Amino acid sequence: MRRSAAETKAAILTAARERFASDGYEKATIRAIAGDAGIDPAMVMRYFGSKEKLFATATDFDLRLPDLNGAPREEIGQAVVRHFLQRWRADDALQVLLRTGVTNEAAAERLREVFGAQLAPMIASFAGDRASARAALVASQVLGIALCRYILKFPPAVAMSDDEVIEWLAPTIQRYLTSG
Amino acid sequence: MRRSAAETKAAILTAARERFASDGYEKATIRAIAGDAGIDPAMVMRYFGSKEKLFATATDFDLRLPDLNGAPREEIGQAVVRHFLQRWRADDALQVLLRTGVTNEAAAERLREVFGAQLAPMIASFAGDRASARAALVASQVLGIALCRYILKFPPAVAMSDDEVIEWLAPTIQRYLTSG
Repeated sequence: MRRSAAETKAAILTAARERFASDGYEKATIRAIAGDAGIDPAMVMRYFGSKEKLFATATDFDLRLPDLNGAPREEIGQAVVRHFLQRWRADDALQVLLRTGVTNEAAAERLREVFGAQLAPMIASFAGDRASARAALVASQVLGIALCRYILKFPPAVAMSDDEVIEWLAPTIQRYLTSG
Repeated sequence: MRRSAAETKAAILTAARERFASDGYEKATIRAIAGDAGIDPAMVMRYFGSKEKLFATATDFDLRLPDLNGAPREEIGQAVVRHFLQRWRADDALQVLLRTGVTNEAAAERLREVFGAQLAPMIASFAGDRASARAALVASQVLGIALCRYILKFPPAVAMSDDEVIEWLAPTIQRYLTSG
């Protein structure tokens, strides 16, 4: 069966996300990723140019934050936690970034961009002051729960439903976003 | 200069923590660790038996939680955050576990033990119910801030003083420990 260029690229990106997430950036090889995708390594290079560029494409992540200025102010924390859980599940790129970011500077920089450049302006639009600090605090709690629930797999965190996670975390995020 | 057995072991453990933290568990080799410590790889094997056992010794971590039953109940969140920041700084093992735990199952298991077996009983002693869930929530926030501040190095998280971190996080931890 012959795959189209778009299908081949998608297969490479899926294989790349899995390899980067399981092996880390340094250990993941173009050869292994090509093998997983069932194509020639030369084809991966032709489509993406280098491992660095493949990583950048595979981890291109947008938080896609909704405009929260229309939402009731007291529900913002809840909306952010719910949105984050959905984005985590809908797009593997964030998991790849978290797994690779602890040992790879390029991935760490991408995460700083996601939470700095995407989250801070949204917060600034309604928080007034210290938007960057608030963004870092929100990042600490939402990445922390992702870490414990999906990566380190702490049993009580895994056992919680999304609604329970939202119930516990919403007041935390609400305070980081709006207090003081 | 000849080192005593205790000095040699200490030098190996220091080198091992650095290697495991920077390279991850799989990529760190006995050869590299021995090189960093300035000794023969055979000596590392003689003292520790295997890479697995060396890792276990290098990441043996105790939260050393103080008995909080004597503390005023409303100050427990603050005490836990302050204690965690001190333990993070005083003992590199936790940083090694966090860096390696995202890609290595043995390190993840150790972290689950630290926060399950050490933190949950302390919480159970005064929280009444859902001690394991509370421990996982506390872990999510304290490991999340460590991740953003010390590993991913989000600039606003790095810029915060310990007192600011405690001020922001204490009400969160207090709620996870005592609410509902």
